[in-house]
Amino acid sequence: MNIKITGTGCYIPDTIEKNDAFSNHQFLNNDGSPINSPNEVIIEKFKAITGIAERRYAKNHLNSSDLGAFAAENAINNANIDPETLDYIIVAHNFGDVKHGTIQSDMLPSLASRIKHNLRINNPKCVAYDILFGCPGWIEGVIQAKAFIKAGLAKRCLVIGTETLSRVVDKHDRDSMIFSDGAGATIIEATNDEGGILAHETASYTSDEAYFLHFGNSNNPELNKDTRYIKMEGRKIYEFALNKVPQAMKTCLDTSGKNIKEVKKIFIHQANEKMDEAILKRFYRLYRTEIPENIMPMSIQKLGNSSVATVPTLFDLVRNNKIENHSLNKGDVVIFASVGAGMHINAIVYQY
Amino acid sequence: MNIKITGTGCYIPDTIEKNDAFSNHQFLNNDGSPINSPNEVIIEKFKAITGIAERRYAKNHLNSSDLGAFAAENAINNANIDPETLDYIIVAHNFGDVKHGTIQSDMLPSLASRIKHNLRINNPKCVAYDILFGCPGWIEGVIQAKAFIKAGLAKRCLVIGTETLSRVVDKHDRDSMIFSDGAGATIIEATNDEGGILAHETASYTSDEAYFLHFGNSNNPELNKDTRYIKMEGRKIYEFALNKVPQAMKTCLDTSGKNIKEVKKIFIHQANEKMDEAILKRFYRLYRTEIPENIMPMSIQKLGNSSVATVPTLFDLVRNNKIENHSLNKGDVVIFASVGAGMHINAIVYQY
Repeated sequence: MNIKITGTGCYIPDTIEKNDAFSNHQFLNNDGSPINSPNEVIIEKFKAITGIAERRYAKNHLNSSDLGAFAAENAINNANIDPETLDYIIVAHNFGDVKHGTIQSDMLPSLASRIKHNLRINNPKCVAYDILFGCPGWIEGVIQAKAFIKAGLAKRCLVIGTETLSRVVDKHDRDSMIFSDGAGATIIEATNDEGGILAHETASYTSDEAYFLHFGNSNNPELNKDTRYIKMEGRKIYEFALNKVPQAMKTCLDTSGKNIKEVKKIFIHQANEKMDEAILKRFYRLYRTEIPENIMPMSIQKLGNSSVATVPTLFDLVRNNKIENHSLNKGDVVIFASVGAGMHINAIVYQY
Repeated sequence: MNIKITGTGCYIPDTIEKNDAFSNHQFLNNDGSPINSPNEVIIEKFKAITGIAERRYAKNHLNSSDLGAFAAENAINNANIDPETLDYIIVAHNFGDVKHGTIQSDMLPSLASRIKHNLRINNPKCVAYDILFGCPGWIEGVIQAKAFIKAGLAKRCLVIGTETLSRVVDKHDRDSMIFSDGAGATIIEATNDEGGILAHETASYTSDEAYFLHFGNSNNPELNKDTRYIKMEGRKIYEFALNKVPQAMKTCLDTSGKNIKEVKKIFIHQANEKMDEAILKRFYRLYRTEIPENIMPMSIQKLGNSSVATVPTLFDLVRNNKIENHSLNKGDVVIFASVGAGMHINAIVYQY
């Protein structure tokens, strides 16, 4: 028995927020002091590092669970399965449903329950739960689906990553330009087909790293101290990711028994273009191998960082030939890898 | 190989909130209309149905993740294990860390990361994640630990349920008297000992039931509409639980191969005394069997409903002979069962 992804789907919100939408923001340093550069310069520098030119925001009346349900519907249609046959719905997110214009996270009921409700799945044996695991949540959900299938608890699972980060950003923080909304979904199932999940790696670094991404106050000290936003220590995260992710990918690939030369695509969490390129470079350096052309599809330029949604969305786009110079063929060995709040790292080696 | 609970622990907050603390609350109906009874009568009626005489509230400076870490420490000590050998830390909750006096849920990083940080566990291979599954979250965490062990992903897991419901209650709602704070934890591991987890059942009812428990406005229409609280449709939940829980317990027991006469204890989520008694009655009626004496330990009278924390806390109390007329002996067959937001139901048949 192998465990394969038999369907993918994503939901990319319609509203395009271009970089110049931030031209009139009052950006401040973490200590509340003004930044001694005009916004045009700040935005240019931001784009040079992250690669982000625009990002997507969900329409005001939609919440994270709505986005997740749209992506799930696409994955179910793509797999051409009866949704009533699903054994699990696993939903990764980090902030619940945050209604536009409010500051509370609504997770009662959990997003998985809401999505199952929206999909009109009646079978009570389809178990719906949420997982919180930072940006690597969707990959971790796939690893959990694999565990349930291997343990005989499931045959077919729906794994979703969905997030509306636009609703938890501090508009006085330059990092607010990174974050985006979106959802990706996949059907994972036991099959007699060749390939599938060959190996996985997961690690949680919580000693010095636990609060590298955290919920904190606005850079504007005049704002209410009881309202908190997504905050990150970018430099520390960058160094952490470079130290840990390439090695985790290597351990995973070596465990899979596949050779570095067989790897056809690497899907890395879309956090920051420069960081992803540096991870790729170090990964190939571990094998003393040249980086092949067109190995790493990227969507961050147009879609920003939508946390748990980036990897399944990117995979769906490539499967559908929507990223230039990138396509997949049966038998291709690919790697999924992510890093994020926790801090967590994970990777999957997968044969398409 | 069997899968057993090798250690338990709980954290019961010091602050005792007795029913008379609610004497001066302005209770209102859901539609905002006044309740035509004096508070003394409301409170007496409440106590007659739920059994709750007092509940526990966490100290202001402590959050849900702190409570979870205290309970985890006790479970680790009780199991007498090196925490660095844990493969998973699974934390069930529903609202994240809600700082006293604020309304936002803080789950960045997830509570599992915070707890692992507080426990000073360094091993990065110890994977820490949160699960949202309503009140049945702790039981579901145990089922997930079982799956990881069976699938060869883990040998030893820490499963925690922690919650500070006192921080999400609407003080104008009589149901605010139900909710409580607390945490329970268990070590689950692969062992050659006899017994352990014999069977489990899980179901998610999300069609008509998804929003029986939800996040909603205060009964006081003058309060901010953007601030929401835990809300429940008590009557519907009562009927749902009575319809579904006894049958799920029966299916689980029948799957385990054990006879109803062998069951020595039943640990039901402490939601409401009358409801739990009615569930027990229906369960034994399904077997046309008399209810044995001292079969169902209860803690709700003194501890209220602390959601995910009730079942592991109650189990820990009985293991330590802290509930009158209740004790456990090696080989005893017990049932854990829960029902809650989602709506989810689950049960485990376990041989002690």
